Amino acid sequence: MKQIYFDHIAGNPLDPRVKEAMLPYLTDIFGNPQSMHSFGEQTKAAIDEARTQVSQLINARPEEVFFTASGTESNNFALKGLALAHQNKGKHIVVSAIEHQSVLHSAKYLEKLGFKISHAAVDKYGIVSRDELAKLLTDETILVSIMLANSEIGTIEPIAEITGLVKEKGVVFHCDAVAAVGNIPVNVNELGVDALSMAANQFYGPPGAAALYIRKGVRILPLLDGGIQEEGRRAGTENVPVIVGMGKAARLAQEEMSQRSEYLRSLKDLLIKELKSKIDYLHFTGHPDNRLSHHASFCVEFIEGEAMLLSLSIEGMAVSSGSACTSRALKASHVLKAIGVDDALAQGSIVLTLGMSNTKEDIEYLIEVFPAIIKRLRKMSPLYTKHIQGKRGKE
Amino acid sequence: MKQIYFDHIAGNPLDPRVKEAMLPYLTDIFGNPQSMHSFGEQTKAAIDEARTQVSQLINARPEEVFFTASGTESNNFALKGLALAHQNKGKHIVVSAIEHQSVLHSAKYLEKLGFKISHAAVDKYGIVSRDELAKLLTDETILVSIMLANSEIGTIEPIAEITGLVKEKGVVFHCDAVAAVGNIPVNVNELGVDALSMAANQFYGPPGAAALYIRKGVRILPLLDGGIQEEGRRAGTENVPVIVGMGKAARLAQEEMSQRSEYLRSLKDLLIKELKSKIDYLHFTGHPDNRLSHHASFCVEFIEGEAMLLSLSIEGMAVSSGSACTSRALKASHVLKAIGVDDALAQGSIVLTLGMSNTKEDIEYLIEVFPAIIKRLRKMSPLYTKHIQGKRGKE
Repeated sequence: MKQIYFDHIAGNPLDPRVKEAMLPYLTDIFGNPQSMHSFGEQTKAAIDEARTQVSQLINARPEEVFFTASGTESNNFALKGLALAHQNKGKHIVVSAIEHQSVLHSAKYLEKLGFKISHAAVDKYGIVSRDELAKLLTDETILVSIMLANSEIGTIEPIAEITGLVKEKGVVFHCDAVAAVGNIPVNVNELGVDALSMAANQFYGPPGAAALYIRKGVRILPLLDGGIQEEGRRAGTENVPVIVGMGKAARLAQEEMSQRSEYLRSLKDLLIKELKSKIDYLHFTGHPDNRLSHHASFCVEFIEGEAMLLSLSIEGMAVSSGSACTSRALKASHVLKAIGVDDALAQGSIVLTLGMSNTKEDIEYLIEVFPAIIKRLRKMSPLYTKHIQGKRGKE
Repeated sequence: MKQIYFDHIAGNPLDPRVKEAMLPYLTDIFGNPQSMHSFGEQTKAAIDEARTQVSQLINARPEEVFFTASGTESNNFALKGLALAHQNKGKHIVVSAIEHQSVLHSAKYLEKLGFKISHAAVDKYGIVSRDELAKLLTDETILVSIMLANSEIGTIEPIAEITGLVKEKGVVFHCDAVAAVGNIPVNVNELGVDALSMAANQFYGPPGAAALYIRKGVRILPLLDGGIQEEGRRAGTENVPVIVGMGKAARLAQEEMSQRSEYLRSLKDLLIKELKSKIDYLHFTGHPDNRLSHHASFCVEFIEGEAMLLSLSIEGMAVSSGSACTSRALKASHVLKAIGVDDALAQGSIVLTLGMSNTKEDIEYLIEVFPAIIKRLRKMSPLYTKHIQGKRGKE
């Protein structure tokens, strides 16, 4: 059976051109970039080039890009490193309520060390309010961390409109842009951020390659202590093949971003239009316009996400959900909660993220199969039956 | 010109069989192991298998192996995570004086948080004394971290003889075995350790793949907070291709360890014998017998390491040094200092680490070229000239 993948935000296939760029560094070119011989010089040069490529994708300087091994590490590095470096000025941190777990749990870690954490509320689309944020800032605030794009609901935050307010108070601004970089234009100067997290796998680069942008002059403590790699800010032998892959993927993303977006948006718009017309009691989540172009998310009333995932999987389709039963953490999505989706509806959450290998035929197959699955599942749903009976009673 | 690589401890080429095992996971199989669909199930199964393979290499249980992205991360995770999890019992930590920077600097980080650090001295071979260690343990001691093999001088520590003493005081024992695992037999139960760091690249696995063994029941706090990967102990999307590579490399290391050791030891013994007979004022470092079989290290009197590295590089040979000028950190090796090598002699440090692609011809080429290089450099060395004149004066 054909396997169709609609879960690109959880894991992307590697672009074959990126793989080609990486292969020599998996075999023939393996020197340690810190070594003082020709083998080391080769890999050092390769890393330098990748750093330039990544910096250009976000309009930063190469020396402002620090490689890490995951978006999670970048977020831990940013939150903990920035907080600990600035704690002499205060111990208050603001994060949004819909941040990734790596930001929220890093904040929780800091809370145990005596920091105070405030969570900025979001509206029903997941947008952080500038005014609400302004109210949270105190003289003790040293760090604000708000994401650029949310992986569960696709919403893009108006970061450029927020940073001015934060920066004029002398507060450091970190932005988790893992779901955004490589997919939408990101310019660290236009955004006005001090630090920004990104991960290569979100734009067809390899897993295990990520980076933290740190604006020149912003103090941060290392998360990984040891050797002097990454200017002493991130110890550990550089993972050359994946760094080279991240550089190549960044270059390709920069060159092809508008075509990719246009293509993915057309597929996504078709998908949303058809789902709207074919399935009732469907509640789209996230912002209708300010959203990632490859991202569709909604909650299906009266059905559990788990049943839909399994049924779709049987038909060869891979999608994601924010429902409790479908996460190995067995907790309902904090993002859906924050945008006001009630617990019952959150159980029917579905997230579809498209990729460049998806075709119009993939979408058509989903549109053909999915409504039938929902119809079948609803037939078995006591909640749906009750709802229909209630409706009939009123008629 | 032929390029000969004698710096395997700084960076190893990938075993082609490991690369073959990894390739499918770089392209076709890319699901997120946390995802609930067939793509995710495939990679989850692959990680489970790799975890078993790695656990068998060190005689642990699969659920005691936690993947990380570098030996440095494993050491940071161990030191910081174990210290913070046990600080209610005391705040004293003992590390040896010749630990890797990632252990020493993690200890320094903990010092800033209020922990007290003691450094266990070593003898002239780099061996930690059981009696000296016993004297350092107090009622406040919660953690001891001593490495299994030293990457600069090759010495293997008698860990199994030390752990009993530490464990009977109820103190947690961590062992940095990065340079050892995959090269010498490592059995966590025979060693009696609670935690043990390892890295795939030391045994022809990919860079970016490493692990921390944590004995069942030993408490540790995460270094990377976020998702629930690695049983909630290490957040971040699993880097599937390199984890698969680490598993395959572990299996191959287990199967081929004795042949590899025998082969490398024969090359190393030849190298040492010839160097001894052809170069005077040569001081071998580390233990003469209890040492890694692929490791030769020495200091050449009256010459700087930098000059030797450059001269060897011109002749196509890559080696390493612990001298200040040859490290990008521009600091003389703390290991050489700890074993009593004086600063002048430490400047002439050379580390040769052999690998399976090295041949007898490589060694013969080195033995032919290196003494001539030393002769030439000494001719230009004011120190050597002075020494020879002084000697003649005495005659």
